[in-house]
Amino acid sequence: MKYPNGIVKEVTKERHVTNYTNRGMNLEYDLNITNEYYRTIDKAYIYKKPTPIKLVKVDYKHNKINEAYFDMPSTTDYNGLYKGKYIDFEAKETTNKTSFPLNNIHDHQLKHLENIYKHKGIAFLIIRFTSLNETYILMEKDLLNFLDNNNRKSIPISYIKKHGYIVNITYTPRLNYLEVLDKNGGI
Amino acid sequence: MKYPNGIVKEVTKERHVTNYTNRGMNLEYDLNITNEYYRTIDKAYIYKKPTPIKLVKVDYKHNKINEAYFDMPSTTDYNGLYKGKYIDFEAKETTNKTSFPLNNIHDHQLKHLENIYKHKGIAFLIIRFTSLNETYILMEKDLLNFLDNNNRKSIPISYIKKHGYIVNITYTPRLNYLEVLDKNGGI
Repeated sequence: MKYPNGIVKEVTKERHVTNYTNRGMNLEYDLNITNEYYRTIDKAYIYKKPTPIKLVKVDYKHNKINEAYFDMPSTTDYNGLYKGKYIDFEAKETTNKTSFPLNNIHDHQLKHLENIYKHKGIAFLIIRFTSLNETYILMEKDLLNFLDNNNRKSIPISYIKKHGYIVNITYTPRLNYLEVLDKNGGI
Repeated sequence: MKYPNGIVKEVTKERHVTNYTNRGMNLEYDLNITNEYYRTIDKAYIYKKPTPIKLVKVDYKHNKINEAYFDMPSTTDYNGLYKGKYIDFEAKETTNKTSFPLNNIHDHQLKHLENIYKHKGIAFLIIRFTSLNETYILMEKDLLNFLDNNNRKSIPISYIKKHGYIVNITYTPRLNYLEVLDKNGGI
């Protein structure tokens, strides 16, 4: 099974910590330290879900896994609670400069975001264009609107710039996406 | 590290499916099929989070994990969305007949449930007394009240019966805990 992000995400975690400036693969790191900051100041409780693993061989005595495989995530990577609201999002990076390729997101993840939106959760994508060093929030409402009206396999950056919200890198927290949602009426 | 439930939970999953009647270790199975039912009828989107794993050796070429360890979960096992509300709970079984031992739950999980409650999420425990074949919901409000007023290391079943709500096993869905919450004003 193809699982483009999982492996890199997990195993390079420590590299991210020591060497993350402008490397392009840092969205997960930025979100993790931001969410940790939100928890520290008691603002929001949003976590990255663990990567699902299919276990094959386990040494119970030593609590050790000897064979396992990365499994397909059934939902999005992040969810939690902010201002009494259920928050749910997927975060993706692309090296593409002109559009966000939709094959970055599994169909069941798109369906999940749609379900959350329809049940009054706050659902969105966070998309980083690594070559441009720009990060955007695209609300599920606007993602759905694009998918319903296009057969394209990617979302042009012009659509994202028009309907989404830019999230700038700041010192603390690193990626203040909740403030951006607050300002733009997302929450 | 001690991780009492994780291993059994994951690896015996298939055994649960084929052989779950009155075996006592089935709360996770009951919740999983119940949550699947809720999703099927578009009632709620509640999932069990994957068990966190600490990766040590990964064969990238074959998407295979050759060495890993079970990690400590930082939050609860289940969360999701129901009627626009953020739902968060931990599910635990005990063979004890007279009380629920609090060492079944990590301190950071208790703190997490408290945070969720204080931020207006719906937080609770689902406790199954396997020897009695009885399952209860104990809302975080009542759990907190107990913890604030007792130094005991376990919650007497009398407290749970008085303040909690029983959840009976039914055919479909197997453990209709959302209906119990609805009826009792939990949501």
